[in-house]
Amino acid sequence: MISNVDCHELAGLVDFGKETLDPARSVWTLVAPGVWKITLGKPEEITPVSVRCSNSAKQEAYHLLPEWGMQVPFEVEKINFRRHRRGCTLELPYDRSEGIFGLGLQLKSHLQSGKKKQLRVNADPTVDTGDSHAPVPFFVSTHGYGIFVDTARYASFYFGTHAKVEELKRRVDEKWGSNPVPHTSTEELYAAHSIGNTTVIDIPAAAGVDIYFFAGPDMKSAVSRYVLFSGGGFLPPIWGLGNWYRACGTHNARDVLNLVRQFQKDKMPFSVIGLEPGWHTHFYPNSFVWSERFPDPRKFTEDMHERGYRLNLWENAFVHPAAPFAEEIKPFCGDELSTDGLAPDFLDPRAKKIFSDHHDQLIKDGADGFKLDECDNGDFLPFAWSFPEHTQFPSGADGEQMHSLYGVHYQHTLAENFQRLGRRQYDLVRSSGALAAPLPYVLYSDLYGHDDFIRGLVNAGFSGLLWTPEVRHADSIEDLVRRVQCVALSPLSLINGWYIPNPPWKQVERSLNEMNIFMAESEEISGLLRGVLNLRMRLLPYLYTAFATYAREGTPPFRALVMDYPGDRNTWRCDRQFLVGHDLLMAPLLANEKNLDVYLPQGVWRNFFTGKSYQGGEKVHFADVPLSEMLLFVRDGAILPLASPGYAFDGKKPIQVVPHIYSETKAKGCFYDDDGNSLSYLSGECVWHDWRWSSSTGFQKMTRGCKKSGAFQPFVLGEPVQVVS
Amino acid sequence: MISNVDCHELAGLVDFGKETLDPARSVWTLVAPGVWKITLGKPEEITPVSVRCSNSAKQEAYHLLPEWGMQVPFEVEKINFRRHRRGCTLELPYDRSEGIFGLGLQLKSHLQSGKKKQLRVNADPTVDTGDSHAPVPFFVSTHGYGIFVDTARYASFYFGTHAKVEELKRRVDEKWGSNPVPHTSTEELYAAHSIGNTTVIDIPAAAGVDIYFFAGPDMKSAVSRYVLFSGGGFLPPIWGLGNWYRACGTHNARDVLNLVRQFQKDKMPFSVIGLEPGWHTHFYPNSFVWSERFPDPRKFTEDMHERGYRLNLWENAFVHPAAPFAEEIKPFCGDELSTDGLAPDFLDPRAKKIFSDHHDQLIKDGADGFKLDECDNGDFLPFAWSFPEHTQFPSGADGEQMHSLYGVHYQHTLAENFQRLGRRQYDLVRSSGALAAPLPYVLYSDLYGHDDFIRGLVNAGFSGLLWTPEVRHADSIEDLVRRVQCVALSPLSLINGWYIPNPPWKQVERSLNEMNIFMAESEEISGLLRGVLNLRMRLLPYLYTAFATYAREGTPPFRALVMDYPGDRNTWRCDRQFLVGHDLLMAPLLANEKNLDVYLPQGVWRNFFTGKSYQGGEKVHFADVPLSEMLLFVRDGAILPLASPGYAFDGKKPIQVVPHIYSETKAKGCFYDDDGNSLSYLSGECVWHDWRWSSSTGFQKMTRGCKKSGAFQPFVLGEPVQVVS
Repeated sequence: MISNVDCHELAGLVDFGKETLDPARSVWTLVAPGVWKITLGKPEEITPVSVRCSNSAKQEAYHLLPEWGMQVPFEVEKINFRRHRRGCTLELPYDRSEGIFGLGLQLKSHLQSGKKKQLRVNADPTVDTGDSHAPVPFFVSTHGYGIFVDTARYASFYFGTHAKVEELKRRVDEKWGSNPVPHTSTEELYAAHSIGNTTVIDIPAAAGVDIYFFAGPDMKSAVSRYVLFSGGGFLPPIWGLGNWYRACGTHNARDVLNLVRQFQKDKMPFSVIGLEPGWHTHFYPNSFVWSERFPDPRKFTEDMHERGYRLNLWENAFVHPAAPFAEEIKPFCGDELSTDGLAPDFLDPRAKKIFSDHHDQLIKDGADGFKLDECDNGDFLPFAWSFPEHTQFPSGADGEQMHSLYGVHYQHTLAENFQRLGRRQYDLVRSSGALAAPLPYVLYSDLYGHDDFIRGLVNAGFSGLLWTPEVRHADSIEDLVRRVQCVALSPLSLINGWYIPNPPWKQVERSLNEMNIFMAESEEISGLLRGVLNLRMRLLPYLYTAFATYAREGTPPFRALVMDYPGDRNTWRCDRQFLVGHDLLMAPLLANEKNLDVYLPQGVWRNFFTGKSYQGGEKVHFADVPLSEMLLFVRDGAILPLASPGYAFDGKKPIQVVPHIYSETKAKGCFYDDDGNSLSYLSGECVWHDWRWSSSTGFQKMTRGCKKSGAFQPFVLGEPVQVVS
Repeated sequence: MISNVDCHELAGLVDFGKETLDPARSVWTLVAPGVWKITLGKPEEITPVSVRCSNSAKQEAYHLLPEWGMQVPFEVEKINFRRHRRGCTLELPYDRSEGIFGLGLQLKSHLQSGKKKQLRVNADPTVDTGDSHAPVPFFVSTHGYGIFVDTARYASFYFGTHAKVEELKRRVDEKWGSNPVPHTSTEELYAAHSIGNTTVIDIPAAAGVDIYFFAGPDMKSAVSRYVLFSGGGFLPPIWGLGNWYRACGTHNARDVLNLVRQFQKDKMPFSVIGLEPGWHTHFYPNSFVWSERFPDPRKFTEDMHERGYRLNLWENAFVHPAAPFAEEIKPFCGDELSTDGLAPDFLDPRAKKIFSDHHDQLIKDGADGFKLDECDNGDFLPFAWSFPEHTQFPSGADGEQMHSLYGVHYQHTLAENFQRLGRRQYDLVRSSGALAAPLPYVLYSDLYGHDDFIRGLVNAGFSGLLWTPEVRHADSIEDLVRRVQCVALSPLSLINGWYIPNPPWKQVERSLNEMNIFMAESEEISGLLRGVLNLRMRLLPYLYTAFATYAREGTPPFRALVMDYPGDRNTWRCDRQFLVGHDLLMAPLLANEKNLDVYLPQGVWRNFFTGKSYQGGEKVHFADVPLSEMLLFVRDGAILPLASPGYAFDGKKPIQVVPHIYSETKAKGCFYDDDGNSLSYLSGECVWHDWRWSSSTGFQKMTRGCKKSGAFQPFVLGEPVQVVS
């Protein structure tokens, strides 16, 4: 029974033992279609839900998902809950045959069954402990449900890792049988498997917690329901889906202008230019004031806009005394310095307003967005930056809670600036967390393992997050090209030159690049990369449509294979491939990887470029893949909306969208269209094109919705083409 | 003011703010000579001190240390203490010029100033977070004091890592001055330094804590005081200081006998043989019963003893149903299985007795000691072994507290078996913790980085722990030789062949060793290693004396240079060299390290082998060090008690101890002598030989104490020799 335990006991040695939940008091309550909540004990006052800035999506959105097909989640009698001096522990039923995924951005592992994870905010996860830029206490099961634990604590999750004393005999029999043999290899001793029948969630400090159950019926629907509950996905402005380049941190206005002139001369299709710390008078902590390197910011930004580029400004949240609002915001900051600056309490509306008001000015100066850096934590580095967990914030949050919430509420603070202007944004952030799906930000990292970067992309989607495997320097030309091929198929196609004065295709090696010593092959390499960046531009209408689906019904645009094929155990360990939108499957190659086994799920898949078909349901071996080739597949029977080749979007000329039919018999597809930049699509000003094609009837199109006439039309439709071989 | 805060507030959002300690209620109390205690808030009931099994050493022992020379520790007014929902936080004064060391076994860093560490029990520390087999909430400062925080929680320590909002201006000025420059290298951004003026200790779950202050006046005395407070150091039996070999886990009685016959034939001087899991009928979890591979254990052990070997049996604490005492101990175990077995609650005297009684039988069968494996934690491995933190033990401890205490109380349980018999022991354990100095165990690990292993040895001494950089396989012949040279100068000279059927000098490469494919050079290599193992035997009287000093006055026998030279900042980062006893300095070489800069502290040092002298106070460069040579130095003016060459101690023939004079003018030294195996030295049956030599007066000896005549005398004294060149 959950009783209001006398808190006096909390200070004693008493442990409360296992409590059977009282169904009369602890019940699942339906809080949204297919979403239930149960309260266990006495939850904390500061949790992701209690301080949330966005509401759950409207009921209609949930009804776009399949019927959830269940009356009630886990029986309450099967949930155990216990409070103790460390906090509280809950146990949920766990089936040793289920596959568990999620927990936010996890760079080091994919399948979580049989593992423990502690969700601690940390920018340097080098081992598979759960440490993450963006941990999220939400997981999904191949059995078609998701669980969100509403806590801002560094909770630990144990998925079938342990068994109870009552299970001793079963475990010993299962493990060694009747005739044990000596095991001398650590691999044998530590083989991964689930041994117990519970998911245990251990929450420090809290005397209780709300948990939310997201019904499927399938895994993807459970994730979509979580996204909708978070407030829905979002739609970036079209320009955000182009290619990005971040200029060197030492560049001044003239250097940046020279850089983009060179891009235009070289026909390198970039849409967004990022300015790194050099634009600040002070940084680490920050003044948020243009430095003398940009003596006339408005003229500079107008010039950039005129040339068709959007501008994204680097910053972090930590305030230098030279910031114009430093004194004003000081009372609304944590009591410990963070990276030597003031850490605004983004849970306090006063701190938000002061911070946001100053950014209004930067937006007036021409900023199209911001890169929110360093909002995670680096507590175990030799120079421990960010605020410690014992920090006290005016809102009542402590440092631990604030780490779990900081990235999200920093994002909300600046997202509201653009909302007030009726403009969309697409930005970068280094930390995120629970209920972040409606926030138009993409995660990145200072880490650089390419395989970890791909795994991050694959995993982020389980929790309504997006991740870019940004490209900086490279170990080799091959490494550079393979990384760019991957990032071009990611949420944000970003080359980040913040520490190299010249684009990496001039010189991949950092120290040589700094000395302006260029590679002999740079001409050839820039040609290769130009092709990849142009591919991104061709995919733009398709990606835009995938995001519109995300915004409308919560389906993550970038997904692990298991999300669409949970019943196929071959997909459970596919952490090197991912789905893009409804119909694309990307299998990036790493440097030094000449051959790759790609798992294609059930059905027929076609090479994106040639239309060549492959039978799915098994691994397909690709040998000696040339550096210029990518392993990108289209579901047979799809019609993809692709831009006509060679197009660089500058927001002025419309994009010609050509339906590409990948089938010999029949196919379907869709394409989403709106004004590309404003929030008017939220009030219905948008058009969905539904396409059908069969060899007998030819191409048919239907449209739903409407657009305001007169405004700039970013898209025009072209004639369909068929891609088969 | 520390008030008995109404616990009701703990469940609310209230944070108690900074409390000024009430000197009338919170005072430093002298609890031992130079040791003070203060109580902050309401400490937990289960802490290292509250459940300790050993008492602080007698007052006389403390008086062997220098006068501590201070009236009182930190002023109470300068300590801040705060309770909150997460637990409690205390702040102690920190001087940005002080060097902080300790926190138990730290494999990844040495100097802790400017860093955060969380003391979590974990067997796989791969990054520098504080995770350790043997974390200890005790640290020492170059300013000549130590602090012990009496908690079994995973406390976090922040040594000057952060600064308060009030310090914003100072920090910004210090960091960037008035003219900031863009920093584009992460090294520049993250350079290690202390920025704040407090040591913060953040303790989860607890509403209060006792802290203990250990006065110096110097760093070594502060450590010695902590060791004495723990119960004093210990003295191993002489045989424990010989060389150890652990046999392959698949060996049976005949294989082991063949192995030692070969050792005797090859004159490889081993004193102790370890048996790995194969001796059990069931292991992981364990039966603690001899398997059919050892059909007549008593005959086997008698045979081994007859040949002069002692036997050490592998085990871990986790109980298989096949253990004869499984049913009996079950009620006194944690409620979660641990590595698939029952985890005895070693804080419960009933569990201890049942476990210990069975071990009495094994000792009767001939076991001379045990290797206590797996008593740490592997929670983040794909197969999470050991018990989880939410485990409940009958004693009232939870899994977190129990992890901090498990290794120590497991050690105590089996140490008492030998105490009852009046015998000394010297054993292996994989986890330890606070107040463990009197426990006759040496730590080891499954990790294998040689540099980490050396750092472990260097750091363990700060907290009254011992560590062996055991040798298993090797990457190369050079790696093997360099590792054996290092382990021979460590607390326990151990070659561990548990996963290789043949000694590593036959074949360093594991898979070839398993296939019985031997190296062409094995004859030559075994010759080299024989020399190193013989060196260990020669050092035995010196090491024995160093341990006797440890037992008597708490001085760790293996120490970082900074412990003896805290005022010399050059020693602060010396984590690759260490002091052995009073007069030796060892600088191990790694494989592929042909040249080494050795820092020799102030004074004159001599090559151990040749007597060649070096002026200290600076780095001395050694180039092209041959594989057969070691960088081992003796303090000029020392007299070392060394065994005459070629001696293999079997407990039957006495060792001839030869005073070795390392000086051209005058020298002194000492040598400790007793019966070598019993506990009678504790009641005074021992002799200290004090030696003086000068070129004018010659060699002089004095003795203190007495030995019982008639019993076996393990040592006889020889004539002194002079080693100079």
